[in-house]
Amino acid sequence: MLKNNLLLRAAKGEEVERAPVWLMRQAGRILPEYRATRAKAKNFVEFVKNPELAAEVTIQPVDILGVDAAIIFSDILVIPEAMGLPYEMIEAKGPRFPNTIHTKADIDKLKIADAGDLDYVMKALSLTKKNLNNRVPLIGFCGAPWTLFAYMIEGSGSKTFSKAKQFLYTHPDLSHQLLEKITQSSINYLKGQVIAGANLLQIFDSWAGVLSEKMYYEFSLKYISKICDALSPIAPVTVFAKDAHYAVKKIAETSCNSIGLDWTIDPTKARQEAGGKTLQGNADPCLLYADEKTIISETHSMLKAFGKNRYICNLGHGLYPDIDKEKAKLFVDVVKEYKW
Amino acid sequence: MLKNNLLLRAAKGEEVERAPVWLMRQAGRILPEYRATRAKAKNFVEFVKNPELAAEVTIQPVDILGVDAAIIFSDILVIPEAMGLPYEMIEAKGPRFPNTIHTKADIDKLKIADAGDLDYVMKALSLTKKNLNNRVPLIGFCGAPWTLFAYMIEGSGSKTFSKAKQFLYTHPDLSHQLLEKITQSSINYLKGQVIAGANLLQIFDSWAGVLSEKMYYEFSLKYISKICDALSPIAPVTVFAKDAHYAVKKIAETSCNSIGLDWTIDPTKARQEAGGKTLQGNADPCLLYADEKTIISETHSMLKAFGKNRYICNLGHGLYPDIDKEKAKLFVDVVKEYKW
Repeated sequence: MLKNNLLLRAAKGEEVERAPVWLMRQAGRILPEYRATRAKAKNFVEFVKNPELAAEVTIQPVDILGVDAAIIFSDILVIPEAMGLPYEMIEAKGPRFPNTIHTKADIDKLKIADAGDLDYVMKALSLTKKNLNNRVPLIGFCGAPWTLFAYMIEGSGSKTFSKAKQFLYTHPDLSHQLLEKITQSSINYLKGQVIAGANLLQIFDSWAGVLSEKMYYEFSLKYISKICDALSPIAPVTVFAKDAHYAVKKIAETSCNSIGLDWTIDPTKARQEAGGKTLQGNADPCLLYADEKTIISETHSMLKAFGKNRYICNLGHGLYPDIDKEKAKLFVDVVKEYKW
Repeated sequence: MLKNNLLLRAAKGEEVERAPVWLMRQAGRILPEYRATRAKAKNFVEFVKNPELAAEVTIQPVDILGVDAAIIFSDILVIPEAMGLPYEMIEAKGPRFPNTIHTKADIDKLKIADAGDLDYVMKALSLTKKNLNNRVPLIGFCGAPWTLFAYMIEGSGSKTFSKAKQFLYTHPDLSHQLLEKITQSSINYLKGQVIAGANLLQIFDSWAGVLSEKMYYEFSLKYISKICDALSPIAPVTVFAKDAHYAVKKIAETSCNSIGLDWTIDPTKARQEAGGKTLQGNADPCLLYADEKTIISETHSMLKAFGKNRYICNLGHGLYPDIDKEKAKLFVDVVKEYKW
């Protein structure tokens, strides 16, 4: 059905003619077209909840940048909201939760969300699917349970997430209860996304890096692994645990299909640790500030290091909002035109 | 001369009866005594510039926590200031530079600082040395050139330091000029610190982790290595590059004496990569939020993993300001009472 299924074949480890390429946060502020659509909503949360606008910005980078996949425009924090903990997005600052989790009663009050609670995402996926007209695969996503937990306890972004980590150290049993509820909600949500049209799923563990290795396995990867077990039978799953440099081997041991890498990970070392699974990444987002010559040569080096098969080309983190869209397009073009 | 020289022997790789212990940011807000002294200065920058107050808070943790070393109370940003780029410290936000570096002319205008430009630090060191009365070694320090460069371009803390990294990508030659000037200033500064009484030196590369491995070696470790070459003949040098998980082996190849590790690094792996050099670290700062039993068992596990010799016990980052001082003292006591 799909005219371009490179991403799906690469994720499953099948042979490809060339590596597929997409960019984390490709539906975002680097595109003037995105900013124009964004201006139609009264705030970020309303923007996310509007299926027509979400579908519109999801498709823009396919048209403008020529990427090999669309990723549904949404936010990882829709899950806490669906569980009963609403969030706000403060301009130039980031997310904020008016209420946070402190006690067992707070956790007991949260519901296990199901896909019906996130109907606006399902509608956005269906609409995107229809309008994409099978040009490229559509990626669905969720935040890793630990990352969502971190926001739900901390109440906002943080350099250290010390409140969230304090909760892990002082209330390990309650932590597991909350992580389990988030995990069940995420499984319901991702299953709904596949039914609504997502061809591949990505789990974003944005705050993996604040945990020690031991705590990462106990409080994060354990739950990611449950999500992979529930979803990988119906759609390929990518796990991206930013700054969890120590965890590539253990992530590869889950039932995920591919592993996202940030730009501090050596491709050759990751290949050794990934047990034959597909890798995704991992250009430094700041490379796109460089001149054309540097972007081309560094991208070529990266492609050589990862190789053609079992590889999804991407940045090692989301696009920074002040990147010139022509530089992002250049990166995509370099990957697509590379002579393997 | 020193009554307790465990730290110096451990740093040099000599045999010890037990591992020495100190805590990064031990002269800090966790101590009510620190907060009382801090209240005597009108702001943070004035506090740093007052040798009597700086000496007072430097010695407090030796008396109160029983650590095996004092580290001079100061700030890494005194070097940019001495070069001609003053900083402010905004309460609850962090450092801010009213002026930042944009052009070659900005770099040319900066002076290479010498120890005389930082007379207040030299006075604080001499006074501390006298009042410590040879009880424990005194540690001097500076920021790594890349970390200072990052602040001087960015103008404040940042999650990504994308402006500073953009400068590296777009002006590599100018970047090297600025890094060289910071390096020369740091060498002059650290030599002055040794003359004024510092027994051991630490280089803090707080923002190592935002760079890719390749850029880290080119723009950061190269300059750290120059500082080590200039200083290690006169005092042991510790290099602490936070989040540069990939760099342990290359740091060990410099002329440094010991290597600081954050809490994401596996001790056994670090031992393999450190080529016989002393290691320092690496407890998760959030461990000190846990109950006594957990603190004791986790600290014991860490001590076992590193072993008695060529090891300096510490956290993997600075103490967080809301840690209970009794928990910090417990950590120190556990290390001192451990039966090797």
